[in-house]
Amino acid sequence: MNIAIAQSGGPTCAINASLLGVFRHAAKYDEIETAFGSVNGIEGLIYDNLVKLDDIITDDNDVELIRQTPSTVLGSCRYKLPSYKDDPAIYETIVNNMRKHDIGAFFYIGGNDSMDTVMKLDDYFKANNIDIKVMGIPKTIDNDLPLTDHTPGFGSAAKYVATTMKEIIRDSSVYSVKSVTIVEIMGRDTGWLTASSAVLRADGESAPHLIYLPERKFSVKQFLDDIREIQKQYHAVIVAVSEGVELDEVEEFQSGNVDNFGHKYLAGVGKALEKIVAKEINCKVRSIELNVMQRCASHLSSKRDISEAERIGGAAVKAALDGESGKMMTFKRVANRPYNVRVESADVREIANRVKYFPSEWINEAGNDVTQDAIEYCLPLIQGEQNFRYQNGLPQHFVLKAALPRERKI
Amino acid sequence: MNIAIAQSGGPTCAINASLLGVFRHAAKYDEIETAFGSVNGIEGLIYDNLVKLDDIITDDNDVELIRQTPSTVLGSCRYKLPSYKDDPAIYETIVNNMRKHDIGAFFYIGGNDSMDTVMKLDDYFKANNIDIKVMGIPKTIDNDLPLTDHTPGFGSAAKYVATTMKEIIRDSSVYSVKSVTIVEIMGRDTGWLTASSAVLRADGESAPHLIYLPERKFSVKQFLDDIREIQKQYHAVIVAVSEGVELDEVEEFQSGNVDNFGHKYLAGVGKALEKIVAKEINCKVRSIELNVMQRCASHLSSKRDISEAERIGGAAVKAALDGESGKMMTFKRVANRPYNVRVESADVREIANRVKYFPSEWINEAGNDVTQDAIEYCLPLIQGEQNFRYQNGLPQHFVLKAALPRERKI
Repeated sequence: MNIAIAQSGGPTCAINASLLGVFRHAAKYDEIETAFGSVNGIEGLIYDNLVKLDDIITDDNDVELIRQTPSTVLGSCRYKLPSYKDDPAIYETIVNNMRKHDIGAFFYIGGNDSMDTVMKLDDYFKANNIDIKVMGIPKTIDNDLPLTDHTPGFGSAAKYVATTMKEIIRDSSVYSVKSVTIVEIMGRDTGWLTASSAVLRADGESAPHLIYLPERKFSVKQFLDDIREIQKQYHAVIVAVSEGVELDEVEEFQSGNVDNFGHKYLAGVGKALEKIVAKEINCKVRSIELNVMQRCASHLSSKRDISEAERIGGAAVKAALDGESGKMMTFKRVANRPYNVRVESADVREIANRVKYFPSEWINEAGNDVTQDAIEYCLPLIQGEQNFRYQNGLPQHFVLKAALPRERKI
Repeated sequence: MNIAIAQSGGPTCAINASLLGVFRHAAKYDEIETAFGSVNGIEGLIYDNLVKLDDIITDDNDVELIRQTPSTVLGSCRYKLPSYKDDPAIYETIVNNMRKHDIGAFFYIGGNDSMDTVMKLDDYFKANNIDIKVMGIPKTIDNDLPLTDHTPGFGSAAKYVATTMKEIIRDSSVYSVKSVTIVEIMGRDTGWLTASSAVLRADGESAPHLIYLPERKFSVKQFLDDIREIQKQYHAVIVAVSEGVELDEVEEFQSGNVDNFGHKYLAGVGKALEKIVAKEINCKVRSIELNVMQRCASHLSSKRDISEAERIGGAAVKAALDGESGKMMTFKRVANRPYNVRVESADVREIANRVKYFPSEWINEAGNDVTQDAIEYCLPLIQGEQNFRYQNGLPQHFVLKAALPRERKI
């Protein structure tokens, strides 16, 4: 039989490592003949846009480059499958294309929304007695998938956030005047990535001095009081705030746009808070949005994250060959020091469309910081640097010329 | 005699390397006894806030760490000296403090505004027959100082911009829908840093597809036409735009605030253009402000830039001992391939408060791109990576605990 692999949702630095994990592990099994890549996520199976991975990953150099290339080598999508009861035709198209290429297992690397696709495909296959295994491989910088200790992509994003925040601390400390620097961090409705900036405490920094997560209700008055309190001790105050923090009291801070899954496009919390500080507190103030660099700055990726992403991809192949389907691979943390994780799997129905929020017991009582437990949780995930290849002063990337994403109307 | 060194203006990744250059080169001369660091630029000489550099840079480990630490180890300032004819008292204070510490030469590492300070001090010393040498050492990511081929700090900023833009290209290319990504780049009124993003062409990228510099008048209509034209060929359009581009036709894109030197705080060109594209062109659009990371992301600094910054600092010591004063050290490019520069010096009066704009002959006729000459100019400056030290997953920095900037009212 053959297998197919696809990547979906927002890019990360680790999603290509998981692709490698599936591809390289599949090569070890005699029962798997060819590994296909599905271009632009599930869209590749709908439009029969598949590439033989053997044709594009030809040597060790390709492997090395893919490992350090951010985003998705095979393209991505934000396509939401309809229920097969509403639209069986699209499922028949997918199955026909899979049968045409003798695909017996499909691996979908993605986040919450991609697990919805895994669940729906598995439901359809089981309801129709179709023997195709479908497995989810987690990936999201948001770290918000249930039933796994953490998600590949999160560690590298956390390393980017902490490194950049450390550099911003140096930058903001040089002047002798009071200042407030507000750093807006991704994570949608969850505070995992923002909380990860606290690892700087383990590195001897006092900053970030204030950390606000969407899991706690935000009060502008309390925020201003918090800053005034910190200013008694530090002349350069650094604030980490999640993009998902809701400023109920402040209008016009969200665009109001939603994507295909109904998620709001969040942007502007940092800028809104900057304006509030500028108005209410007499000091220099700046906001910084770390933006997509959080998910694509692969030159700063965590070696452990990349290595785990590859490992969990490989484990998915073994699980499918062992007969598992409709599951997502998970990490179970065994210990922090020395750090150790086991790879397991869980029913994707317990994961899809659900969100794992940052634990409320890891937020301090005042709701403006996280606890030492949060730091201990994040610290192992940012460890290690890749042996990164540069050429002509720039990082080298792997680019799949043959399968550039095509514009489609679904 | 002793010497004093200070750092001023906006931080860069190379300004500490120039400090090292002065400090380490000074150690070679018997006639120099002690090198003092003046905390927070010229303010340290006004308030007699000096530190012995021997006390804080004690071994090779300190040297290595300072070389990879962004921003200014000695703090900075944006203080503008009044004319000595208007306010001789502050000059007398400075001279008294210099005499108290037997300082015979002062080295000021900074940009256009810092060179104003060098000029004014030298004018005062010469008018009053005071034998203290004062030398400027260039530093700015904006690369806008006259009479030098380029400025330390620019190469590292350009390497950050190009690397990040390359990662953004990967990130923006994954979806099958049309998109426009607008990257806002620093440089105040000049386009040097924005233009440097074109080095990606030498790396095989087609992006950035459009480059807009403040040296050319910007037309919103032409900008929209340019994007529509590029969209015929590329589904993910990448635009590089300088923060200093003036959107005469668009209100409210500038805060209107000015700093002590009368410079406008520029911010928001990218966001303003994002809104225009969202309104006028039916596609996904995002703007990204690279913000202070351009000047402080030392983990990505150019090895050549850091090495040149140290070299030019050392050359300033020799020049002062040779009797030069009221000058700024400069680079004269001898050749591109192989790259070679000479270190010279020039009268600071020809530099202070003047701006070197991006050459108009390096901008294409349509005003939306730069030429191959611009690429050849920038490429040598981003070469090489530092052998960077990480600890516990994070870059190590040197922090001067003893001389934390104090709040002052001048």
